[in-house]
Formats: sequence, C-alpha cells, structure tokens
Amino acid sequence: MSDTDKTKAAPKAGGRGARFQVAMDDAAAALNASVDFDRRLLRDDVRGSQAHARMLAAVGLISTDDAKQIVAGLEQVAGEFERGERHMDPALEDVHMNVENRLIEIIGDPGRRLHTARSRNDQVATDLRLYAISASAAIVVAIDKARVVLCRRAREHAATLLPGYTHLQRAQAITLGHHLLAYAEMLSRDRGRFLDAARRASECPLGSGALAATSLPIDRQKTCDDLGFGAPTRNSLDAVSDRDFAAEFMFCATLVGVHLSKLAEQIVLFTSAEFGFFELSDAFSTGSSLMPQKKNPDVFELTRAKAGTLLGSLTGLLATLKGLPSSYDKDLQEDKAPVFAAADTLLLMLPVLSGALQTITPRPERMRAAIDSFMLATDLADYLVNKGIPFRETHALAGKAVRLALDNGLGLDGLSLQQYKSLHPAFEADVYTVLDPLESVKRRKALGGTAPSAVQSQIQQAKSKLSGE
Amino acid sequence: MSDTDKTKAAPKAGGRGARFQVAMDDAAAALNASVDFDRRLLRDDVRGSQAHARMLAAVGLISTDDAKQIVAGLEQVAGEFERGERHMDPALEDVHMNVENRLIEIIGDPGRRLHTARSRNDQVATDLRLYAISASAAIVVAIDKARVVLCRRAREHAATLLPGYTHLQRAQAITLGHHLLAYAEMLSRDRGRFLDAARRASECPLGSGALAATSLPIDRQKTCDDLGFGAPTRNSLDAVSDRDFAAEFMFCATLVGVHLSKLAEQIVLFTSAEFGFFELSDAFSTGSSLMPQKKNPDVFELTRAKAGTLLGSLTGLLATLKGLPSSYDKDLQEDKAPVFAAADTLLLMLPVLSGALQTITPRPERMRAAIDSFMLATDLADYLVNKGIPFRETHALAGKAVRLALDNGLGLDGLSLQQYKSLHPAFEADVYTVLDPLESVKRRKALGGTAPSAVQSQIQQAKSKLSGE
Amino acid sequence: MSDTDKTKAAPKAGGRGARFQVAMDDAAAALNASVDFDRRLLRDDVRGSQAHARMLAAVGLISTDDAKQIVAGLEQVAGEFERGERHMDPALEDVHMNVENRLIEIIGDPGRRLHTARSRNDQVATDLRLYAISASAAIVVAIDKARVVLCRRAREHAATLLPGYTHLQRAQAITLGHHLLAYAEMLSRDRGRFLDAARRASECPLGSGALAATSLPIDRQKTCDDLGFGAPTRNSLDAVSDRDFAAEFMFCATLVGVHLSKLAEQIVLFTSAEFGFFELSDAFSTGSSLMPQKKNPDVFELTRAKAGTLLGSLTGLLATLKGLPSSYDKDLQEDKAPVFAAADTLLLMLPVLSGALQTITPRPERMRAAIDSFMLATDLADYLVNKGIPFRETHALAGKAVRLALDNGLGLDGLSLQQYKSLHPAFEADVYTVLDPLESVKRRKALGGTAPSAVQSQIQQAKSKLSGE
Amino acid sequence: MSDTDKTKAAPKAGGRGARFQVAMDDAAAALNASVDFDRRLLRDDVRGSQAHARMLAAVGLISTDDAKQIVAGLEQVAGEFERGERHMDPALEDVHMNVENRLIEIIGDPGRRLHTARSRNDQVATDLRLYAISASAAIVVAIDKARVVLCRRAREHAATLLPGYTHLQRAQAITLGHHLLAYAEMLSRDRGRFLDAARRASECPLGSGALAATSLPIDRQKTCDDLGFGAPTRNSLDAVSDRDFAAEFMFCATLVGVHLSKLAEQIVLFTSAEFGFFELSDAFSTGSSLMPQKKNPDVFELTRAKAGTLLGSLTGLLATLKGLPSSYDKDLQEDKAPVFAAADTLLLMLPVLSGALQTITPRPERMRAAIDSFMLATDLADYLVNKGIPFRETHALAGKAVRLALDNGLGLDGLSLQQYKSLHPAFEADVYTVLDPLESVKRRKALGGTAPSAVQSQIQQAKSKLSGE
Repeated sequence: MSDTDKTKAAPKAGGRGARFQVAMDDAAAALNASVDFDRRLLRDDVRGSQAHARMLAAVGLISTDDAKQIVAGLEQVAGEFERGERHMDPALEDVHMNVENRLIEIIGDPGRRLHTARSRNDQVATDLRLYAISASAAIVVAIDKARVVLCRRAREHAATLLPGYTHLQRAQAITLGHHLLAYAEMLSRDRGRFLDAARRASECPLGSGALAATSLPIDRQKTCDDLGFGAPTRNSLDAVSDRDFAAEFMFCATLVGVHLSKLAEQIVLFTSAEFGFFELSDAFSTGSSLMPQKKNPDVFELTRAKAGTLLGSLTGLLATLKGLPSSYDKDLQEDKAPVFAAADTLLLMLPVLSGALQTITPRPERMRAAIDSFMLATDLADYLVNKGIPFRETHALAGKAVRLALDNGLGLDGLSLQQYKSLHPAFEADVYTVLDPLESVKRRKALGGTAPSAVQSQIQQAKSKLSGE
Repeated sequence: MSDTDKTKAAPKAGGRGARFQVAMDDAAAALNASVDFDRRLLRDDVRGSQAHARMLAAVGLISTDDAKQIVAGLEQVAGEFERGERHMDPALEDVHMNVENRLIEIIGDPGRRLHTARSRNDQVATDLRLYAISASAAIVVAIDKARVVLCRRAREHAATLLPGYTHLQRAQAITLGHHLLAYAEMLSRDRGRFLDAARRASECPLGSGALAATSLPIDRQKTCDDLGFGAPTRNSLDAVSDRDFAAEFMFCATLVGVHLSKLAEQIVLFTSAEFGFFELSDAFSTGSSLMPQKKNPDVFELTRAKAGTLLGSLTGLLATLKGLPSSYDKDLQEDKAPVFAAADTLLLMLPVLSGALQTITPRPERMRAAIDSFMLATDLADYLVNKGIPFRETHALAGKAVRLALDNGLGLDGLSLQQYKSLHPAFEADVYTVLDPLESVKRRKALGGTAPSAVQSQIQQAKSKLSGE
Repeated sequence: MSDTDKTKAAPKAGGRGARFQVAMDDAAAALNASVDFDRRLLRDDVRGSQAHARMLAAVGLISTDDAKQIVAGLEQVAGEFERGERHMDPALEDVHMNVENRLIEIIGDPGRRLHTARSRNDQVATDLRLYAISASAAIVVAIDKARVVLCRRAREHAATLLPGYTHLQRAQAITLGHHLLAYAEMLSRDRGRFLDAARRASECPLGSGALAATSLPIDRQKTCDDLGFGAPTRNSLDAVSDRDFAAEFMFCATLVGVHLSKLAEQIVLFTSAEFGFFELSDAFSTGSSLMPQKKNPDVFELTRAKAGTLLGSLTGLLATLKGLPSSYDKDLQEDKAPVFAAADTLLLMLPVLSGALQTITPRPERMRAAIDSFMLATDLADYLVNKGIPFRETHALAGKAVRLALDNGLGLDGLSLQQYKSLHPAFEADVYTVLDPLESVKRRKALGGTAPSAVQSQIQQAKSKLSGE
Repeated sequence: MSDTDKTKAAPKAGGRGARFQVAMDDAAAALNASVDFDRRLLRDDVRGSQAHARMLAAVGLISTDDAKQIVAGLEQVAGEFERGERHMDPALEDVHMNVENRLIEIIGDPGRRLHTARSRNDQVATDLRLYAISASAAIVVAIDKARVVLCRRAREHAATLLPGYTHLQRAQAITLGHHLLAYAEMLSRDRGRFLDAARRASECPLGSGALAATSLPIDRQKTCDDLGFGAPTRNSLDAVSDRDFAAEFMFCATLVGVHLSKLAEQIVLFTSAEFGFFELSDAFSTGSSLMPQKKNPDVFELTRAKAGTLLGSLTGLLATLKGLPSSYDKDLQEDKAPVFAAADTLLLMLPVLSGALQTITPRPERMRAAIDSFMLATDLADYLVNKGIPFRETHALAGKAVRLALDNGLGLDGLSLQQYKSLHPAFEADVYTVLDPLESVKRRKALGGTAPSAVQSQIQQAKSKLSGE
C-alpha cells in the first residue's frame, strides 16, 4: 500500500519501522523526495484535508471538535509555511507529511485522526487536480486579457492595409485588424480547450484510498461538493493513477505555446528592418548601448523557445504514462514538475505578450507600400466571373494580364483599357475600380473576411463571447 | 496565392504557365506531390465540392443546371477512382486537381466554374476537417464497443478476487470486475475528448479563399449547413492555416494509445507464467510449433509500440505547427499522413483488443492464491478505527500485528486472540471476520469501490452513459 | 522462443501447429503482419542468409553442396520478388518466412537446413543493421554532395556582401560565402555523426539465437567478416533487443532535418519580397498561372515540415524502447517503419536542396543595399581599442557616435571628423577607412571569420575533408 | 549585435542607454533574465574569461599586468559567489554581466578591457561547451562505476540459472550473469556515445564575436589550447548558434535514460511477489510501517519516469532549434536548463542504481524453480541437428515431443527413451544429458552466449575496456 509506505522516510511520523535495519541511502532519499516541488501544493493540500476532516466528522468517524481543531490547525500550518516561519523538511519527503506532522505537533491526537479513511494516493491526486483546475482558471483569465488586447488593436486597425502572405510570399491585400483577429481566434479555441479540460478534471478522487477505496463509511459526495468538484470519480483503481487531466492540461498549454510561438514568429518578422511593419515599445524589447537605434524582440524569441519546452514536457509526461499498467506507481511523482512549469510559463508569457501587443506601434505607410497591384489579380479574375466567364478561364485571363503588365514594366493598374480588351472583350472601364487595394479588402466582407466591416463584426462577436462565455 | 500556385504541376489544367521555362525538377516534384496520401480525402473532397456547387447556384454565381452537372459529374469521378477504373496522376499533384481535372474532362465548361470563389487552401482545410470528424465518430463507436466488452467481462467477474497492486507490489485485495472497469473509465474519458474535439473541429472553412475570403457574394452558412458543420469559421486568415483540430485529434488518439498501452502492459504481465492470471485465446495470440503450450501476447506488445508511434506523430505535428507565423504555408501538407495513420491505427487496434478481451480466460484460482492475509492489514487498522482509536495509532498497531505474525511464521489470520490483545485490548473475537479477502472487498462498497455491489453500480452507470450520451 | 513462434502464421512452413484450434483473428493477423514494410529488407535478408549458409558449411553443420544450393536459391528468390514475378504473402507474416518458404519450394531439403543455429530474432536484428549501415553510407554521400554545392556557391560569393543578423535584426556586415559555409559546417557534423553511428552499428548479432545464442558449434567471426561488420556483438541477450543503432540513426537523421529546416527557413526569408536576396530557379519552386511573377518556396517549406516529422519519429521510437525490460519483445517490430521513412526522407530532401541551392540566384545589389553604416559600430569601437582605450569605454563611445549621427539624420560615415573628435580626441582621419562594409568584412580575417580570405581558407579546409575523410 | 544588447539591463555597466525612455516591463525582464539558471556556468565563465585575458595580453591587445589583474580578480569574483558572500543580481540579467560587473568593481579599468574582441554570443557558447564536456566526463565516470558493479555481480552469478524471456514468456534457460551483462553492454555503448559527443563538442567558439568574428588581431588557437579544446570552430556564424553539441548531449543522456528505464522495469518485475527473483536492500527501497515485509522499488520507478522526462527535454530542444534560421537568436537561451537538468538527473540516478544493484539479493532457488524442461525444447532440436536431421524437421520433432509430454502430464525429461524413439529413431540415451538446464546453458558457450565460461570472457573483455578505453 503506497500510502503508508510514504511514512518510512518520516522518523517523526513513525518512520521506516523497526524492520529496516539500514537507513535509506542518501542519494536514493534525494531522488525519492518530492518536497522541493510538491510544496507548491500546500494550499491545495490543506483545502483537501480540511474538507476531509469536515466529512469525517459529518459521518461520525471523528468528533466535531476534532474536526474543528484540525481545520484551524491546518490553517495555522499553512500560514507558518507560507510566511516562511517554518521550512519544509526533506526528511519528511513530501508536502503531505510535512503538513500532517506539523499538525500533530500543534494539536496532538486529533491530528492523528486526520488520515482516517484516506491514503497518500487519493490525497495527492486530489491536490493536483485542485491545482490544475485553479491554474486553468487563471490561464483562461490571462488568455482573455490577451484577446481583449488583440480585439482593441484590431479595432484601431480595422481598415489599415497590410499585405497578406502565403508561403511568406505576398498574396493578397488584407487588413491589419483581420490579421490580429486570427490570433484572437486561436486563443479563443485555447480557452475552450482549457474549459473542457478543467470540466473533465473536475472529478474528486478523495476517498479512493490507496487503490481500493475504504471499508469505512465515508461520504464521498460531501467532500466532492465541499471542494467544488463536479462529481466524485467512479472507480478507485483508476482514480489513484489517472493523470489524463495532467496530460490534457499540458496539451492545452502546449497548444497555447504553439499559438504564441506563431504570433511571436510573425512579430519577429514584422519588426525586422526588411519588413518594418511594427515597432516594439522600449518596455518590451531589449536594446543596445552600441547601436541605440536597435530593438531586439527578445521576449518574442523566448516565447518561441518556451513553446518548444512546453512541447517537450507534454511528450515526456505521455512517454512516462504510456509504460505503466494501472493503479499507483511511483513514476507518477514525475507528473507535478511539468504541470507547475507549464502554468508558470503561460502565466508569465501571456501578460508579457499582451503588454507587448498593447504597446506595439504599427507603421501603416510601410504596410501600404508593400502592397502592389499584382496582389489584386484574384480580384481581376472575380471581376470576370461577375461578367459570367467560367472561373478557370477568368483565372487564366488574369494571369495573362499580369504577364502583359510585367512585360511592359507596368502594374495591373497601369494597363490601358485597350490592353485589357485585347485579352477579353468583357473588360470594361469599371475594371479600374477593382484595382484599388482598399476597395479590394472592402469587397471581402463575407463572414470571416478581411473587410473593415467584417472585422468589426468579428470583434463584436468576440466581445460578446468574452463577457458571456 | 497558394491556391492557384497548385495548378502549376497540372499541365492539363493550365500548368505552370508560359513563364516557367524550366520544368520542375523530378525529385522536387516528387517531394511536392501529395496525391499518394491525400487521395484518401476523395470522398470528403467530392462532398465539399458538391456542397460548394449547390451554394454557387443558390446565390446565382453559376446556373442550377451547371450545379446539377457538377454534382452528378463528381459522383461519377469518385466512382471511377474508387472502383479503380482510373488512377490518380501524380503529375496533377493532389486529389483536388485530379478530381477537378477529371470533372472537366467529363462535363466540360460547367466543371470550369466549380472553383469559383474557392481556393485550394480553404478546400483542403474543409476536406481534412470532414475526414477528422468522420474518423472521430468511427473511433467513438470502436471505443464504445471496447467499453461494452469491458463491462460485460466486469459483470462476469464482479466478485472474482484479484490481488491489487501498487508499485507492482501486492497491496490490497480487489475484484477483477473493478480492475477491468478502470480501463472502461479511461476509455470513457477518451470518448468525451473525441466528442469535444469533433465539436470544436466542426467549423466550416469553406469560403475563406486563399487567405482573405472572397469578394463574390457567397453564402457560407449554406455550405456549412449542407456539410453538417456546426458553424462557419470566423476569420479567413486563421481558417486556412488552423490545424488545431488535427493536433487535438492526434492528442486524443495518443491518449487512447496510452490507455491501450497500459491495458496491454497489464495483460502481458497477467499472462506471464509468473502471474498466470489470464490465458489468451488462440485467436488473439501467436504460438510456437516448437513449444506448443506457449502463447505470445503479440497483439498487446504491438499495441504498446503503436502508442509510442502515435505519441511521436503528435510531437512531430506540433513541432511543425510551432514554427509557422500565420496563414497558409506548404508545411501544412505534412498534416495529413499522421491523421490518417492515427485513425487507421485506432480502428485496427480497438477491435483487436475488444476481441482479445472478449475471449480472454481469467483463472480465478490463481488470482485468489496470490492474495495473502497481510494484504488485509489496512482492514485491521480500520477495524481499530471503528473502535475509536486514532488512525495513526491503529496504523502502527496493524504494523505490529504483521510483524508479530511474520516472526511466528503465521498469517494475520493465524494469530491468536490473545496475541492480538497483547497488542491492544480493543481487539476482540470479531477481528477474524475482518481477515477474509472476500469480506474485505465486500466492505469496500463506497462509491467507486471494489466491492461487487459497487462494481455492479459502476456497470449500471457506464451502461446508461453508453446508450444515453 | 520468439523465433519459432513466428512460424505459426506460416502454414506451409509448419504453421501454428496442431494445438491452435482457432485460426488467428483476421484483424489481429493484420496487426501482426509486417511484410508490408519489412519487405524492404529483402536484399539484406538474403545477404545475411547467404553468409549464414556459408558459415554453416565451413563449420560442418551443413554440407558444402547444401550451402551452394542455398546461396544460389536465395539469389533466385530475391530476383523473383524484385522483378515482381512473385509477391510476398501476408499469411507468411514477414519477409524472412517469405524468403525461406520460397527457398524450400525451389531447393527442398537443403532449404530446411538454412535456419540451423539461427532465430528470427538475431536474423532481423542483422538485417536491420545492414540496412541502417547502407542507408547511412548513402546519406553521407548525399550530405557530401550538398556540401560540395555549398562550397561551390560560397566560392562564387566569397566577397559578396550580405547583412548578418542576430535576433533577425541587422547586426554586422558579412559575406554570403561565409553565410553559406555555416550550413556546410552543420552538414559536416552530421556526416561525422552518421559515420560514428554506423561504426557503432557495425556489430554482427547473427548467432545470438532467440536470446541465448546456440549450443551448436558456429563461427560468429566468420559471418561477421563475411557481412563486413566490424565485430560480433558481445552479449546475445542484448544483441537480439538492442535497437540503439536505430535510435542513433533516427537522431542523426533528425539533426540533419533540423539543419535543413534552418537552411530552409533562411531561404524562405531571403526569397520573400521584403528581403529579396535570393531568387529561386523555376525548377525548384512552384508558380502560379494567376500571378506568373510569383515563385513559392514549396520545397523549402516541406523541408521544414519533414524535419518535424523526423523529430516525431525519433520521439516515438525512444518512447517505445523506454518501456521494454530486456530481450526480444514484439514491440520491436515497430522499429522498422521510422528507419525506412527517415532514410527515404533524407535521400529525397538532400538532392532536392542541393539542386535548389545550385540553381538559386543571389542578388548582390539587394544585399548590399541592406547594409547601413550603423552595422559598422563595432568596427568603430575596435578602432578605438586599437588606440588603447578600454573596450567598455570604446563601446560606449561608439554608441554615442551612433546617437549623434541619428540625431543629425546622418549615417556614421556622415559625421565630420570634428564631430568625432568632440566625442573623443583619439578619433583621427583614418576613422573613415573603418566605415566601409567591404573593408569591415576584409578585416575579419581571423580563423572562422567572414573575410573573403577566411572564406577561401574554410572552403579549402572543407574540400580537403571531403576527399580525405 | 546581440552581445552588446545584453548590456541594456545592466545599469551599472552602462545599461539600456539614454535612448530607452521607458524601463523594461517587469514581467518582460523576468522572462528575459537567465541568471537563475546560467549561474551554474560561473566556473566555466571564469575559466573562459581567464584564457581570453591571457590571449589578449599575448597578442598585445592588453598589457600583461592587466591580464594578471583580470585573472586574479576573476578568481576572487568566483570565490565570492561560490562562498555565498555575494549573490547574483537578476537586474544584471546573466552570469556573464554579474561576473564582469563585479570584476570591474574590484579591479577597475583593466576589467573594462576584458570584453575586448569578444561578444556575449561566443562567450556563452564557449561556457556551455565547457560545461557539457565536463558533464560528459563525469557521466562517463558514473557509467563506468555502474558497469563495474554489473560486472562484479555478473561474476558472482556467472553460473546462476535464470529463466530467459521473450514476449515476457519463459523461453530458454540463461544465466543471471549473462542477463546482467546485457545492461553492461548498453552502458558501454552509452559511454562510447558520450565520448564521441564530447570529442565533437570540443571545438572552441571563442573569438567568433557576435556572429562575424573580430577585426582585432586575436589568436584563437591560443585560447583553444588554453581551455583544452581540440580545435577552434571553423565558421563564426555557425559557431555562435551551433547547439548540436547540446542536442547530442541530450540524446546521449536520453539513451542512458532509456537503458536505465529498461533495467528498472526488469527489476520492478523481478522484485514482484510473482517473480520473486530479487530482493532489494533496505537502503534502496521504501517500506511501510503497516506492512513491514513490503519493499517498494521507488528508485526504479522514478528511474523510469526520469527517462520520460529526459526524452521530453530532448524533444523540446530539437523543436526549438528546428525553427531558427541561422546565427544567434534569443531562443537559444532555452538550451541551458535541459542540459543542466539532464546532467543532474544522470549524476543522481547512476550512483543510486549502482548502489541498488550492488546491494540487491538474488534468490537462486526461485529462479531455478521457474525453469521447466520445456524451455529446453530448442536443445532437443539442436540435438537432432547434430544427428544430421534438417533443422526445420528437428524443430517439428521437438514440438511433437513437447506435445507428447504435455499430453502425458510429464516434462520433457519425463518421457521414456521408447517414447522419444517413437518420434524418431535418431533419439538415443544421451538425449537425457541434453535436458538439464545447467548443461544447456553450459553448451551455449559461443561468443556472446549465456554459458558461465562465455560470461567470464565477456567480463574479462569488459574489464579490459574499462581500464584501457
């Protein structure tokens, strides 16, 4: 039974017992101890234990007075550790034993009743779920703040022209607002994924014991409700070893990382001298005393790299889980560090990127200058479609127009009407109205399109989702 | 514009145009062609094109008669390829050009109107979403069949004793039914994840064009409804490059792989001579003409390995996505092979494992024999808790009882009442009723517990979810 | 014994034996069969078997005549399969049984002696090593061809100016030749890694049997020498399950992928309209009939994506290996597909990239125009270092010069000597000789530097390694 | 120029300069700072700087007296930080600025000359290579210690019988010594890989500057020799961004992790009650006060999990590198943490596992009892091969003997000679000498075989390599 095993490294709590003649090897003990990272579960552990104590009292396994002492004592323990008045002892191996041990020091016998009908295995599973659920909520808030910034900047630039790229080649004119909203869309999906994952994580394993639940008459629904979980888990064996919620958390985090990396890659490009579309704020770039005009996009480069690290952590966790048969194995101790690191990373990166986006300065004239008339070739083809010519034919005709212009050193807007008519009689004087970039984007006003009006609709829709979701 | 670029390798469809004096390098063309794998999108491509044609007619961009010819022509094209009457031509690069080209051969001019207001970029994004949604549905069916088998076997063995393990060390007595249901729980979460992912994937990119939507007056809601999507995508730039749905599909598949790998690892253990808890059916094992008594669990070993491969494919896709700024890049062509492979793997593995589980023969006597009285030490501690002694104390007393029994070469049930009383006066004659494994599991009847009654409840709950979800 | 187990699916070869009353489930058989991919080992399998037969004859386990018939018969079998005269039968599960079975059909009894003192486990390990070693050699050749192209282009552009970037911000002037040689360096390391890996792979497992070697008096050194391996493996248990060589092959391939991805990323950037430093050949780009002036860098984008796929395959293989205890497990069957795919990918990508690099057209005027005088600020600092001023001070002075120039709307070369002297009296008229980009790169002639002379030395060194390594 | 950029966060060293009106955002600064982890490079940084200073003096760029002051000052700085007398200041961003800043505080002007002809980019590349080379050497020592332990235990158990498994099914009798040496082989390859990687890493980037080397007359060979590198790097652009050595270090570490995970998996199996082949020492297991007879293999379970984490870190680093074009990007800052963590993990795990293996107690009687006569069926087939019967026939005959024995409830050694002769007349009385497990393993004395004599040879060979390599 894994639970009780954990007490072995805790001499004050009973320790390895009379049987172990040899002390644990120092290096092995160091490998084994988890308090260096699981101390972050302190508050979740205390919350879980308080709910457990209240339940034990409610079903009569401990007295109401014991429960009160335990709840108050745990509060004191948490405070002592948080305020740095006491430090966790690696010899007690993990946060759970540190808390329980200190509780017993403070309140005595009632503290010895806390672990009734519970195991370290269901306890830590409960703690980590509480952590993941809280972290997901915090990340969703940070995501929403980033979405607000993207929408705000998109509104400002709903009609600002920008060359749109495919294959990093200039393709069609779009608006900067439209471009920014693409990232808001990605983050919106991330939000949904975190909410789904948190909902699925919201099952309470407490009461599952070491693996087989308990023979004592506990009330799992009560602790579940007390801790705000959606439901108790349905199978104790699965409950103590299920780390799907951790893997799903890591996947959601990785996909946020991928999206932020894409955004970062874009901004690194756009702030290069060659593109010159964006200028970073001093507060979000690093400079040089040698070349004071330079601003390096370090935070965006680091964002790309952190996405790689998140991906690696997801991979590592899945590789570990893959090998385990069922029930609790100590391998699961390695689940915590990546979850903590992923939460820290996102809660650091998202605000930094929000701040950077909020303070970035677009240069509309540079963006406009990068749009040439050939980017309107599709518009030319569509112009002819509207005259009733089959698309594949209009497509070829537009290509011929581009070729004709190039051969004459002109833009598409430089060709004479006669030249256009030489390609096809359907061309008329109104063709020139097609060849204006701003008119081009304005026409693309279908749902999801790049037109300023479509951008405003998208912002409206995103805002309603921000408040109402 | 990436869409039209794709026509370059299609001489019949217009090709690389007059400008390209040099033919594409053969190896480069081979690297570029995708028809070897994207041919699997044939049906989805035809469905998407038929819906597109109906919409074009509805908004007046093509005639109703053109639409009819296109819809019927596409049906013929699909049939020809499916029946092997025609083969796809790599020179036409991808499934889309092969289909459109053949359509034009059959119906002529109306076929040239099909690609109106569409791009290869929104077309392939639509196709792959259709595929992923269908594949998810098929996988959910296969998951449910596996869950049914697990529930059926669990019902048969609701009261069959099995040693429960932590750290692969015998820990507490459980029931085989309870053990099997742990895997049903994992698959139940997988089901939910696939449903969530499919819902999120259910947005229709058709009409997003190459990246900036179109200036033609299309009706995106109509194609969306026609194809059964939940909603049109909201931002065309995001829509042509979003592969979150593919990544999420791969993640869901990988987690199924992890769960099946865990199950497989368990069965490899349980079918070893040392455990000897399960015997495989001949139909799901491989044997040896040399040692005819042997049965190798090959399908379970391969299941573990396929989980590794799935994990690798997820990783690879995410690493590729991470590097792209936004909008369509050709890198995205590499998204298809892993999605197809993942679907194939799961739709092969899940039925094989269902079959293997259905035909596996448990050996109750071997499982019962592996349970010794020491696995009831927790029950002993709980017995004393019921007498009012603090848990940490009962825990220590149970340990002393184990030690006393070991020192006397006895089991816990071999100690005399006097010996028990020497440890603590609270021990009474009823202690022996605690020390029966079947009684032990029967007592663990709390929600999620291992008791036969709890197992039956879990099956009932799972069944209601199977039909009702 | 896994070896003999494999015969079960081969009715002609003895099959599953009398004991298996139930035929193997069809889906399970499909999961189990490997002939679809391991057929690629045909030649390696035949080579291994021929060497084995010669050894058996040499030690007297079979007659010389038997060995001759086997060697000739295997040649015939290989030819039949290669010429498509016969097709491999999935019912015989793998390439090994297909070959042996057909051999017995052709030559009868001597064929039945071939598998003496051998197992499928050592046989397949030998085959895959032979494959990996050959593939490594082919990849090294392809790498060297790419290095030759890089050196050739570097020589042409040893003195062509190019802005050098850090953080994708213009930093210092360099030469294009220097830039290209950076990639040659990466490939040179890849070469070394593949050679090291091939050397380590060059141990012959043949004779290791199923796991415990054999009691028959074989001569492992003879087969080892015959097949050109460096040494026989030293432990039979390790030999049948060791796939380090496959993992190392995958890692080397992944790192090549990473390097080619970096190169591809650079070229995608440099061929964008904004940079405009390179123009792709028509033979290695895709165009558009709509916008005939456009050239998309598809092959480079696919290169980036293939690097992601390679990384995923490496990850998947390692995740699979991680879970296995020792000796042969069927999971190892999943080792082949990624190795084959990695070899195919590199042997396709390397020549395509070599061709693309060979035919790319640099635009020196665009590159030169992107260099401004501020990129010479370091040279200014070094100028003052040469006058004896501490570096940290010269660094600050150069920064002040940049600031002064910017404030006056000038370049560094636009400041008057008086202005320079106002910053520090050490400035003299020779400061202007420092501010020429070509002079700047010429001065950086230290080992590994960007000076044309240093570039020529690097090419010389690389060439000597190409021929002499 | 990235180098000088780094000074911006260092107000004492000149800072962000007059131009940056806005202080860096706090969160962005936190994301940017690396001193929390790169402080581990302190000693390597000081070594590198000392060599650099000596070289600067040798070529006359600074005075000999300056160099002396710098070398001594750096020693003092290192000591202050190591003894905890001073703490690194995150406002100075990284270890390099902390060291240089403190040096200037102590020795003044000569300290301001240290960074002459150097950049942060070549400096950190040098530091990390020095670290990786030292860490590799330390890991090789730890690997060798583990190999010594494996050889020692293998010698003790060169003749101890153990069932050998394939598919986790009992296959053939082997010796425990042979089994242990399989892991020694894996570690021996790991050793070779680390040595190859360290050799390839042994190129000195110092002098490569920010990306383009320097115009000052430095002597790169001198610093290279001073620091013990094999050669200077050959291309400055590559040198500042090359992290192949880090990736290769991570791969080597991951493969060690995979091997240790395999060993751990084996020991977890062998210490289970069902196998019962090994008993762990108290010093390397965790126990339970409740069930004092239990010993949990925590250190082996954690070993498996750490292998997953290592794999993830490798993946993450490669995913990050894949996206970068060339030259220095800030993403590379994320290279350090995984390298440090991998070194720490291996240098913790290897000694723990060595200790655990040294103190593990095999149970020969349990291992012997798990060998039944059917595991000798191959020996029976080989017996007949020695009588001249074709292998495929002997194979079938051995299978029939097994069947006959099973049908009669006997072992292979229980069949009468008459029964054997009924299968084939070639059977004679000497068949019984074949059916002894110890005789069976003794016969497998070919190179790499499981025979006690072969095991002794393998140990001899391994030992000579340990001392001589």
